[in-house]
This record gives sequence, structure tokens and C-alpha cells, in this order.
Amino acid sequence: MKITSLQNQLVKFYAGLKLKKNREINRLFLLEGEDLLKEAHAAKMIRSLLYVGKKPFEDNSIEFIEVTEEIIKKLSSQVTPGKFIAVCNFLEKSEEKGNKAIVLDGVQDPGNGGTILRSAIAFGFDEMILSNDSFDIYNDKFLRASKGSIFNINIKRINLKEELIKRKTEGYKVITTSVVNSTSYDEYNYEDKLCLVVGNEGQGISKEIFELSDASIHIPMNDKMESLNVGVAASIIMAKIYINKK
Amino acid sequence: MKITSLQNQLVKFYAGLKLKKNREINRLFLLEGEDLLKEAHAAKMIRSLLYVGKKPFEDNSIEFIEVTEEIIKKLSSQVTPGKFIAVCNFLEKSEEKGNKAIVLDGVQDPGNGGTILRSAIAFGFDEMILSNDSFDIYNDKFLRASKGSIFNINIKRINLKEELIKRKTEGYKVITTSVVNSTSYDEYNYEDKLCLVVGNEGQGISKEIFELSDASIHIPMNDKMESLNVGVAASIIMAKIYINKK
Repeated sequence: MKITSLQNQLVKFYAGLKLKKNREINRLFLLEGEDLLKEAHAAKMIRSLLYVGKKPFEDNSIEFIEVTEEIIKKLSSQVTPGKFIAVCNFLEKSEEKGNKAIVLDGVQDPGNGGTILRSAIAFGFDEMILSNDSFDIYNDKFLRASKGSIFNINIKRINLKEELIKRKTEGYKVITTSVVNSTSYDEYNYEDKLCLVVGNEGQGISKEIFELSDASIHIPMNDKMESLNVGVAASIIMAKIYINKK
Repeated sequence: MKITSLQNQLVKFYAGLKLKKNREINRLFLLEGEDLLKEAHAAKMIRSLLYVGKKPFEDNSIEFIEVTEEIIKKLSSQVTPGKFIAVCNFLEKSEEKGNKAIVLDGVQDPGNGGTILRSAIAFGFDEMILSNDSFDIYNDKFLRASKGSIFNINIKRINLKEELIKRKTEGYKVITTSVVNSTSYDEYNYEDKLCLVVGNEGQGISKEIFELSDASIHIPMNDKMESLNVGVAASIIMAKIYINKK
């Protein structure tokens, strides 16, 4: 198939996927960048691949659509777009649970989300669980920040309170971060099965989630700085949990 | 003073400060954002303050220039600019040295630089030393990521090799990060006087700097992830150094 017109209905449909609303209705998202495409291909997530010039590879399970540079430019979120854009299926919710989940309660910035995801994988976490009011995981900035890692870990967006209540009955300990009445992250004796919760960039963890804490920890620091970046804070604690586990 | 024309020579001069070259010739940079301005004012770094509408405060040592919204828009790097832009003097190189310096060897991304700066202050580091090929500290993205912290720590851009050789004679230990032949960051016995070196996002630490290492450390992680973000890696180690010091 080849499309050359910017007015083509399919092009308009794909361009619509730049909006969260349309992504959710169609359960499809756009992905660009060579490394990301490789990961998406390996994970069998690509439904259609739009390309300029030469078809990058053969795969009978993928619909290949030749397009013009103008069309790629219209669909891309980059200043200098590449030669491919993939239309991918939403990640499937896996029922698999590991021992360690990083939980994001209202984290807003997709860049912070990407940092947390990469550190979670590096430090042996099995799941990333997001509250419904956290950033959208199909947001272009998150996909780029994650560098393809979204295909290497279970990611779930969910009613967080219900999920954590259920996890507690399944033996997970809910560990929250808090500056008051908490243990230093360096002194806490981490359980094998745990949900580590970090909160919104401005407000921190919401009250209803905080009330589910089995324990609360903090990162000691001096008073010259009000708070750490949430991606940094999560990473510092996950690094320590990884060491303790060894 | 009031300026209303976009063609005004002074406006053109200020707009030129968006380029690194012009900032360095004039030793001046632009700063925007209310929090940043407060910090800059407290640190007496503001030379001129361009404002729309009402003068935000009085200060005889500052030149106040009333301008139009169009002029602010021309000078701003933001999509929705505020009502003020400050023209600030370059930071003065302080000869003060503390015990702990975070050293950036060729770090390119100003966002990573901002993360490292904030963590450095949180974890009691006294200086941030950058190699000449690292990002520009007067870059708008770094200034925003730093959230005004640049006024709370000594920042120096310098010939790194010469500086580290000198530091070693002054009793500083040079600690580099390396995945091979290195100690876990959690097991290293950190000295009181140290320079902690992190490297370029892609290449890591350069050979000539690495050769100056007194010790080398790494952060244990699993092999599913190739590397950590440099801001995250620096923060994890600095957090640990802060705890050991206490």
C-alpha cells in the first residue's frame, strides 16, 4: 500500500493518535525512533509500519504502508523525524505479578516516569503500577524517555487504592516515602514482596494511599534543598533494595 | 526607562544573549521564572530587570526597564512567558573549596546537569566542577532544571585534567565510576575530601580523566538494562556519601 496525500483518511486517523483520547478509544499509539521500533518489533507490538523509501524489514504479521516525508512529518513529534513511524497496539495487561512493584501515585511528568521505569528494570523490579491520574504511558515523551523499556516490564494503569488493598491481602508490603515519622531508606529491612510508592511532584503521595502504608521511609538530606526529583528519589531507594536482595 | 520597540538596539542586544557565544563575550545571561528571579535577586546577580506592567520590587542597585509583552516574548524561551526577564551577571568563580565536589566530564544534557546540581546540594556537596566540553551552565534548560540552585553552590567550568591533578596534590581523592574493576558504591569507604567524577551520557568518563582515578566504583544492577541515566547514577552515589558522613 502507498499513501501520498496528507488528506488521506488513514493519515488523518493516525494523526489523531497524537491525542490521548483517540489513543484510548482505538487502543493504538504511535512510536518512532529506530531503537524503540526494534524493541516494539521484538515484542510483536507493531500493527502497521509507515515508511519512506525502503521497507526496513519483512514481516508478514505487519501491515507496511509506504508514505511521503510530508506524511511522516505530520505524524511525528520530533523536529527532525526519521524514516519510520509505527502504529502499535496497546500493551496487554499481564496478570503476572513479580515480587517487587514500583508504584506511581499521581506522577505527572512523563520524563520522570521514564527515569523511574529504566531504574526499575535496572534494579530488578517486575512491575510498574500507575494511578489513573498519573501521566499517560503512550505519551511520546515517556516512550522516548523509556528508551524501549516499556516492553521489558509489566506496566499497569489502575485504580490504585483497590489494587494496593488487594496486594496487601496477597502478602505485599506497601512502603511509602515520607519525610516525617519514617525510617532512613538505608536502615529499613526490605521485605521480599513489596510495593514501593512514590507520589506526585508537588503534593507527594495522596492521603488515601498513604493510609495503606505498612512502612514509611525517607532519604536523609540536608535542609538546603526542599525535595529531590521524584525519579531520583525512586531510583536511590530501588538501588538499595537491589543491593539488599543480593 | 521604557522601551516599546522590538527594533530597539538594547532589545536586540538582549535577544543576542540567547546564544552562548554572546553570553560569553558579554558575561551576561537571561533568567526568567519567578522562583529563579527571587534566588538571583537574593544572590545580587541581577543587573537589569525587564518588566511588563508593575515594577515587582524596588532596588537601587538594579536597572529597571519597562517593556512590552512583545519584547518579553521575543526574549523568552518559554511558550507562555511571565512578566519579567532578568539580565544577570555571570557567576563569579569562587576560590572557596569545600570537601566534596561533583565533577562532570563531558555531560551534554542540561537536564541531567540540573538533576545532578539539585542532588549535589541536597547531599551536602560544596562544588560542581564541569569540563569545558560539558553543557553550558547559562543554558535556559539548565537554569530551569536547577530551580535556582546555581546560586547555592560553587560552580566552575575549567580544564578538568589540570584541575584534578591540582586537587590530588591538595589531598582530594578522585573517585570515578566504571563498570569494570570497581567496588560497589555501597561498600566503598568514602574519604572526607573527594572529587566524584561522572561522565558523558554515551561515552562515560574520558581516558585522560579516568587515569587520574584514586578509586573506581559502580552501582550494582541487573543486565536487563545497559546503563543508568547519569543524573540518577550520580544521585545514588551522593546519597550514600551523605549517609556515610553522618
